[in-house]
Amino acid sequence: MPELRKDYVTDTWVVFSALRSERPIEVKRDVSPPSSTTPCPFCLGNEHMTPPEILAYRSDGKANSPGWWVRCIPNKYPALTIEGEVKRTVNQIFHTVSGVGAHEIIIETPDHKGHIASLDEKQIYEFVCAYRDRYVDLTKDSRFKYILIFKNHGAEAGASMLHPHSQLIATPIIPRRIMDELRASRDFYDQTGGSCLYDEILKEEREASVRLVTENEFFVAICPYASRYPFEIWILPKEHEVHFEDMSYDERRALARMLKDTFTRLESLMNDPPFNYYIHTAPCDRRDHRYYHWHIEITPRLSSTAGFERGTGFYINSVPPEDAARLLRQAGQGPRG
Amino acid sequence: MPELRKDYVTDTWVVFSALRSERPIEVKRDVSPPSSTTPCPFCLGNEHMTPPEILAYRSDGKANSPGWWVRCIPNKYPALTIEGEVKRTVNQIFHTVSGVGAHEIIIETPDHKGHIASLDEKQIYEFVCAYRDRYVDLTKDSRFKYILIFKNHGAEAGASMLHPHSQLIATPIIPRRIMDELRASRDFYDQTGGSCLYDEILKEEREASVRLVTENEFFVAICPYASRYPFEIWILPKEHEVHFEDMSYDERRALARMLKDTFTRLESLMNDPPFNYYIHTAPCDRRDHRYYHWHIEITPRLSSTAGFERGTGFYINSVPPEDAARLLRQAGQGPRG
Repeated sequence: MPELRKDYVTDTWVVFSALRSERPIEVKRDVSPPSSTTPCPFCLGNEHMTPPEILAYRSDGKANSPGWWVRCIPNKYPALTIEGEVKRTVNQIFHTVSGVGAHEIIIETPDHKGHIASLDEKQIYEFVCAYRDRYVDLTKDSRFKYILIFKNHGAEAGASMLHPHSQLIATPIIPRRIMDELRASRDFYDQTGGSCLYDEILKEEREASVRLVTENEFFVAICPYASRYPFEIWILPKEHEVHFEDMSYDERRALARMLKDTFTRLESLMNDPPFNYYIHTAPCDRRDHRYYHWHIEITPRLSSTAGFERGTGFYINSVPPEDAARLLRQAGQGPRG
Repeated sequence: MPELRKDYVTDTWVVFSALRSERPIEVKRDVSPPSSTTPCPFCLGNEHMTPPEILAYRSDGKANSPGWWVRCIPNKYPALTIEGEVKRTVNQIFHTVSGVGAHEIIIETPDHKGHIASLDEKQIYEFVCAYRDRYVDLTKDSRFKYILIFKNHGAEAGASMLHPHSQLIATPIIPRRIMDELRASRDFYDQTGGSCLYDEILKEEREASVRLVTENEFFVAICPYASRYPFEIWILPKEHEVHFEDMSYDERRALARMLKDTFTRLESLMNDPPFNYYIHTAPCDRRDHRYYHWHIEITPRLSSTAGFERGTGFYINSVPPEDAARLLRQAGQGPRG
């Protein structure tokens, strides 16, 4: 079974998973894409190449056959394993938690070469709904303390498969970055007598407007003040919303529109940049996290970190967010080539 | 002037430096090395191509001319600037510190193709002494709260120049990772009535021995229990030592031997792996940090992080440190090809 270990000193956790190293790497750096004769397990007609599906949106046909437009499957090379109990062991300076969790793939479209910038809004809406459906289903499993939905696009961003897909990992402990955000937003809430830190960010950034990228009726996209990476973008719901999964149908449609808008802007500035994005939402225990505000963080991979970043936890960024936001605003909504 | 900005929410700091983006990139991923006709500014005879030296070990000759065996220069494309006062500004959710600091290059050898695994121990000792000399000199500047010495080797590790060199960055605030280590080791010290957490790590790991790589009279190398990266290695002084710069001459010689031993083992397992290392030592304010224990962290770059790591702060590692340590122990001290 995989294992989570805590660093002796800091609150840094590492997932040790032997299975993970066995996955085939289809996407590689600076090499031509795999030949078209290699069958893609995420394409229509190749459903037998993946583990049986957990969820699929299809109008007819039977499970694990063509006819779907969004399909969710277990990751064949999971970081965490779905079976087993969560055991925590503390032995002197050695802290371990058993590697129980879910690791799923959400195939966003049957289109092997699809891209958020070129997909129909309707299709993006569909996979956003799949994010939510899988999220809600997994919250029923009390072994999971947090569920992260994320996307890797391009080899530099850690993607091993070309076909558009997102991933979901449910973990038996609340991750450090989430704890940091929870702690800070709870402190702000307490100190201000009930204000949300993210509401304050929205207010300040919409007023200042220099780091604003775009907005629609439900969402705002900004380049954050302390962007860690060039062209980092956060998408936040305008209204105070704690849980990602509480989005209405209208909000999901607006999020699809916002994702397409944002990636179309990025795409018109650079040619298919590698990126990661991930959804930060409240822990799935549904305890009272009223001070929190869910959001999406998009981090393009245009530069790499080195010894200074590893040694300090600082980041070095050569593109001020004001410049990035201005370029993204100007980029408008040009069509993707 | 460069600027340090704190994230609205978490204690994450970002250095914004426009100059940094102007540096030429000599080392690139997956391309052949630059032609030998490109003059290297770090080679003997090309001293005029760099800013004037700050320190050089030479037996004769004048400054900024050949004859040196270790040479320290300001980074031509610094992340932080040496001139100016440190000003901290807090305006609502916007925290800024002026980007004052030092950013230096330590040229480790005149040998353009040198590598720690192939250099003489004597030469490694020399650049370790240069680390210390520059460190001690910069501690006199009260604007600096922390000084990180680090090395990037290979394009994947963020190196832009091929010629063997380390870097030093002095920052006007204590970095987050150092704060985390200081806090945890102080807590341990308080809870145990005066024990050092790193002494405990040394004791436990030398007893268990499964993660032990090698040791000499003054230093121990281990693959840490929660290694974030495959083949991560920590080098720790056996005796409780707070400050890196307090090393005796004998200890510096032993550290040189330990560095050569460790990198020779890595080198015999893989062909010139990219890596970063950095020295973690107590802050340079020389306050009472008696609970801390300086050490070096070596992190090879054999895998890349993706959306899960960015979103959670967790790491995924497919090589257990017990396996890495066993291979490194077996690797012995074969000569580098």
